[in-house]
Amino acid sequence: MITFLSDYGLQDEFVGVCHGVIATICPDARVIDISHGIPRHDVQAGALVLRAALGYMPAGVHLAVVDPDVGAERRAVAFRAGNGRLFVGPDNGVMSLAAQSGGGVTEAVDIARSRFRLEPVAATFHGRDIFAPVTARLACGEPLASLGEPCDPGELVRIELPRAHIEDGALVAHVIHVDRFGNLQLDVEHEELPEVGLRLGRSVELRSRSTGTSRAHYVRTFADVHPGELLLYEDSYRRLAVAESHGDAARRLLLGAGDELRIRPS
Amino acid sequence: MITFLSDYGLQDEFVGVCHGVIATICPDARVIDISHGIPRHDVQAGALVLRAALGYMPAGVHLAVVDPDVGAERRAVAFRAGNGRLFVGPDNGVMSLAAQSGGGVTEAVDIARSRFRLEPVAATFHGRDIFAPVTARLACGEPLASLGEPCDPGELVRIELPRAHIEDGALVAHVIHVDRFGNLQLDVEHEELPEVGLRLGRSVELRSRSTGTSRAHYVRTFADVHPGELLLYEDSYRRLAVAESHGDAARRLLLGAGDELRIRPS
Amino acid sequence: MITFLSDYGLQDEFVGVCHGVIATICPDARVIDISHGIPRHDVQAGALVLRAALGYMPAGVHLAVVDPDVGAERRAVAFRAGNGRLFVGPDNGVMSLAAQSGGGVTEAVDIARSRFRLEPVAATFHGRDIFAPVTARLACGEPLASLGEPCDPGELVRIELPRAHIEDGALVAHVIHVDRFGNLQLDVEHEELPEVGLRLGRSVELRSRSTGTSRAHYVRTFADVHPGELLLYEDSYRRLAVAESHGDAARRLLLGAGDELRIRPS
Repeated sequence: MITFLSDYGLQDEFVGVCHGVIATICPDARVIDISHGIPRHDVQAGALVLRAALGYMPAGVHLAVVDPDVGAERRAVAFRAGNGRLFVGPDNGVMSLAAQSGGGVTEAVDIARSRFRLEPVAATFHGRDIFAPVTARLACGEPLASLGEPCDPGELVRIELPRAHIEDGALVAHVIHVDRFGNLQLDVEHEELPEVGLRLGRSVELRSRSTGTSRAHYVRTFADVHPGELLLYEDSYRRLAVAESHGDAARRLLLGAGDELRIRPS
Repeated sequence: MITFLSDYGLQDEFVGVCHGVIATICPDARVIDISHGIPRHDVQAGALVLRAALGYMPAGVHLAVVDPDVGAERRAVAFRAGNGRLFVGPDNGVMSLAAQSGGGVTEAVDIARSRFRLEPVAATFHGRDIFAPVTARLACGEPLASLGEPCDPGELVRIELPRAHIEDGALVAHVIHVDRFGNLQLDVEHEELPEVGLRLGRSVELRSRSTGTSRAHYVRTFADVHPGELLLYEDSYRRLAVAESHGDAARRLLLGAGDELRIRPS
Repeated sequence: MITFLSDYGLQDEFVGVCHGVIATICPDARVIDISHGIPRHDVQAGALVLRAALGYMPAGVHLAVVDPDVGAERRAVAFRAGNGRLFVGPDNGVMSLAAQSGGGVTEAVDIARSRFRLEPVAATFHGRDIFAPVTARLACGEPLASLGEPCDPGELVRIELPRAHIEDGALVAHVIHVDRFGNLQLDVEHEELPEVGLRLGRSVELRSRSTGTSRAHYVRTFADVHPGELLLYEDSYRRLAVAESHGDAARRLLLGAGDELRIRPS
């Protein structure tokens, strides 16, 4: 079983060609497309989607290609995580959050010069020429070690997300992703929600640097507030998020990925 | 065999995650994606596409998720139609036209609290947590009755489309869907086309409330009229439709879903 | 194994319905979607993508539907190429470049009235009613000759691309495709690159009729030039191409498909 995530989009034939390469090498492999709509070159967005989606995917080989530096110096890697899942993609952190959730990287190989790559390797399409063929070999039983040169798991690039904490009675959170509706995903998972007195159904105060203080409602879902109101809620992956009902919270609060947001009961 | 229709779009990972859930539970099930481009929250559009497409799909389990009220009070259901096909989705009518074409609902269960749902159920993603896992269980042979609480087939929500009729020598039809090219799908199927004197190749008079009377040609296909001319034709599902060659009939006639259109030979 | 390319897009259910037809007739066939994002009615673009992608696809039945004249007089065909691959689609040249690369057409049948088509055939959806069912029959072992009336391979429509040549010490190339980023694909493949003194890393002079002479760099990839600079490079299919880093070369040079571009070392 293979899963495939990328920023290739579906307008061009890039995804189809990778499917063809895989089917040619390992005809019995089944491929689940997680998404090919990751914003172009947005490695962190890809990493977040991959981590969130993998909990719902059968274990197998997980191919992830969001690769702004294709053709430049970044490494190409395949590795095994502590939970046994196998990953293939560029070494830029796109797989690092999923790997971390899966117990960390236990064995890694540099596949830039893998004997299984397709020659000649195009400078702009490693998905087709390196990542897809290596993925297919893994899916067909080739051992990880045979795919390339061993490399130190500790050296792989990792994405470091900001960390929420409590300060002066406020939850200091950070925007880690803005979706296309302008909803703000924060760096607070359900299990980590600290005790700052947030109660479902109550008002909260949101403070951002650009727009000062705004009022929001801490609720279960969009239907619990009126159009135009801000809401704080747990999204479908149980991460804290901020939205504007029938609106765009990112635009209203002038916030983007990386920005800080302070939350306190009001 | 499973078919899957939704308004999730393909930019996000929602469709991929549902595929992952299905593959995890029932690895041998094959899934055909009918379309994930149903206009967001447009239950009637989803119902029409599902009914039209199912005639070309192998029998199996048919998953349909267009669900504007997810997290609110609507029921989640699975049912069997008279022709043996199985359906899973929200009880808002999205599957009702297909069910009606398939001989009506013969057995239904409420799956909102199915023992097969994934816990915790996210308020905003029943596709992943309720509908996909129940679909996968059905596809793997779980009996319908074991999926939830029995419920009365007669109570399921049905979409009622307007009905065409003849009045004063005119065919009184209604727009049931406007596609993205502005073509108007009418509530008249080939078999029901009443005898009002329409003849292929002849002119017809179209009368709408907003724009009065317009002339159109009753023809077989777009190539039979000049650019800018209106045509009345049978679309690929043999339903009567109105279009403007190289143009947008909905904008020209100021018509939308539900509106009346009177057609008579001229 | 089946591959499927079209200009249907993924918003509507057209692609899904064709998958359903194939799965109904030949349940064990696997279908790889090469792309459904070919620009609407752009037969040459479809032909170029099909030719380029097929080198990465397992051999099988290759369905291609870009069909501006559906319902009009063009033939519907299935044929075998010299390399054994089978093709199904409209006879408008969309499969001709791939066929040529595959050793030419060795056996062809007209399938417009194939006994395997679905009745009644809709004037606007031959993909569903003619091409998909014939493709499925082929994939399930039906002999080519049994699908329709034999026709002369020499009579099939072929796309003739312009041919690059050398004149006055310049490479006279032609734009064969403009992608959505404004990159210009030229009619010069790696193997055919003539000896006009181009050297990687050196400057070249580009001359177009509309904008006169521009300077570009002949390099390996985008990273080798500065934003706003023009580059001449080999794309991932090893065809010569022109791009503007972080820009739109087609707009800058006012060039479109078919236009001439003269290239010489500077």
